[in-house]
Amino acid sequence: MDLLTKTLAEIKPLDDELLDAAQAKLDNKTKPLGSLGRLEDFARRVVAITGSLAPETGKKIIFTFAGDHGVVEEGVSAFPKEVTPQMVLNFLRGGAGVNVLARHAGAEVRVVDIGVDYDFAPQPGLIIRKIAPGTKNLSIGPAMTRAEAIAAIEVGIELARSAKEEGAAMIATGEMGIGNTTPSSAIIAAFSGISPRELTHRGTGIDDAALDRKVSAIERGLKVNAPDVADPLDVLAKVGGLEIAGIAGLVLGGAACRLPVVVDGFISTAGALIACELNPDVGQYLFAAHHSVEIGHRVMLERMKLEPILDLKMRLGEGTGAALAMGLIEAGVKILKEMASFEEAGVTQSNT
Amino acid sequence: MDLLTKTLAEIKPLDDELLDAAQAKLDNKTKPLGSLGRLEDFARRVVAITGSLAPETGKKIIFTFAGDHGVVEEGVSAFPKEVTPQMVLNFLRGGAGVNVLARHAGAEVRVVDIGVDYDFAPQPGLIIRKIAPGTKNLSIGPAMTRAEAIAAIEVGIELARSAKEEGAAMIATGEMGIGNTTPSSAIIAAFSGISPRELTHRGTGIDDAALDRKVSAIERGLKVNAPDVADPLDVLAKVGGLEIAGIAGLVLGGAACRLPVVVDGFISTAGALIACELNPDVGQYLFAAHHSVEIGHRVMLERMKLEPILDLKMRLGEGTGAALAMGLIEAGVKILKEMASFEEAGVTQSNT
Repeated sequence: MDLLTKTLAEIKPLDDELLDAAQAKLDNKTKPLGSLGRLEDFARRVVAITGSLAPETGKKIIFTFAGDHGVVEEGVSAFPKEVTPQMVLNFLRGGAGVNVLARHAGAEVRVVDIGVDYDFAPQPGLIIRKIAPGTKNLSIGPAMTRAEAIAAIEVGIELARSAKEEGAAMIATGEMGIGNTTPSSAIIAAFSGISPRELTHRGTGIDDAALDRKVSAIERGLKVNAPDVADPLDVLAKVGGLEIAGIAGLVLGGAACRLPVVVDGFISTAGALIACELNPDVGQYLFAAHHSVEIGHRVMLERMKLEPILDLKMRLGEGTGAALAMGLIEAGVKILKEMASFEEAGVTQSNT
Repeated sequence: MDLLTKTLAEIKPLDDELLDAAQAKLDNKTKPLGSLGRLEDFARRVVAITGSLAPETGKKIIFTFAGDHGVVEEGVSAFPKEVTPQMVLNFLRGGAGVNVLARHAGAEVRVVDIGVDYDFAPQPGLIIRKIAPGTKNLSIGPAMTRAEAIAAIEVGIELARSAKEEGAAMIATGEMGIGNTTPSSAIIAAFSGISPRELTHRGTGIDDAALDRKVSAIERGLKVNAPDVADPLDVLAKVGGLEIAGIAGLVLGGAACRLPVVVDGFISTAGALIACELNPDVGQYLFAAHHSVEIGHRVMLERMKLEPILDLKMRLGEGTGAALAMGLIEAGVKILKEMASFEEAGVTQSNT
């Protein structure tokens, strides 16, 4: 059995008894019932995901997948394509937004070259697992072959599994790829049936003319490729991206080995959506980091039944939102582990 | 000149040039313009508040003011009054929600006995500045004298000033006081003119009968005391609380000595509102930590033109929301200080 099939088979729904046991423990902490709101939800779910009533905290890894996109030749992005490798080097030197926020949260950033059109020298912090030097132009044909899409997913699965073996308490997705809001919008248009015109946003900040080119590229891509939404791998291969496939794999691998997975913004959510379409139980293992300003984001989250944790009007990607959200999820776990009970603290309980 | 008058005179509006200089620095970081959303706003405001383009981070102090309330004899709370000192002792042992979240954020918790009806032995972490052993029952007469209210405000001002002298980068408010959503609701009803029935919420979780008693206590209190909204000290003294006065003072003192102040939830916001009514420029120094589920909270925030940072459905108080928000504000400052510029990173800028 191949790795993807095996992984999909391993993913199980969360155990209600564990959710209840976690809530019972929270309800005996020195606070009014339920008064820590979503922090309690985070703790409950991490318990059920990991199977421990005192889940580990500490080791957190953000995997930032980088890939290039043939569709940039349609003029869909505000930044030129060479910015993808330039930003990879910025990540490796620690100067990008995700580096700053990951250090702040106590998380590690690992950059995965899964499809950049540039040959990087091997170096610390860089995982070279290049499937192809970028995708093909999705507006005129398939972005990838089905085999490439599966290979990229399996890279993500392997990274999640090795993070678990290393003792990671939580993992997160991030990405870098000039042009990658275009395949992300194409994926959500395919699954939702909403028109690209309605779903497509300005990405990193394109003008009206570029927005028209982007909408047109997506419309033509959906028409020429006719992706089959009953077959999520077909959608991913035809109108997706290599980093999106890697993210889908990380999410699947995390769910299969019972690791909480924090999903960053718009592009990461497109990857997570592919994973959830392959196995709907995956959503229970996910935390949506934040609400992106991209229009299609909420459509995807609703489809996966996820409620974003933060809404700070961020639209950078890389894993920046995930870094901040990891800190909040960890805070919830610490409430469960570190807060005193009424009995321990000698505090009188509510009279209602 | 007395300390309160002197402090009010020292508070100045933020300097627009500093706000612009901070944004110019942010705009040269390796990211699309404005793509870090509210993190950029946090950084900009901390620059303008502190007067430094590379503001200090690190030392963060949460002041949790504790006080008792005569109005609890009206049966307005789900918890008995002895829980106030019990929780103070829980704070001092590090077992409460605010302790866990402050440790997580790298902040220190200092508990201020400004009006608890219990004699604490002096101990580390406890600041004993008791003005009175609780307020009087506001439903039948003034909660405090005007002199008590001013004395409690001045405690807060002094604590903010000493935090600045110690090198704090940011301070935050928190509170503990069984029954204190009742004076908070009374304050906002007084200023907004909205009826107590409409504004009053279930606090820590009271039933319908207790909610009726709470609404009635506030209605009677407003009627018998007739607080003068043109005189915020009159409102504070007649229907407020000692910890609410301490918070108002901390906010005023922070603004006067150019320290960013993070305001926790509902009760803290009532204190901050008193400060803003005394000097409307104060609002520019404040960060509203989170959206509380209490109904009157949004009314107050709108009056102060503050947008809450988090919405995690929390309603615990103590400074718990402030602890989490401090981490996010600090993240914004680190973006300003630590991210590479386009030139430093050798990254090509946007073509738009």
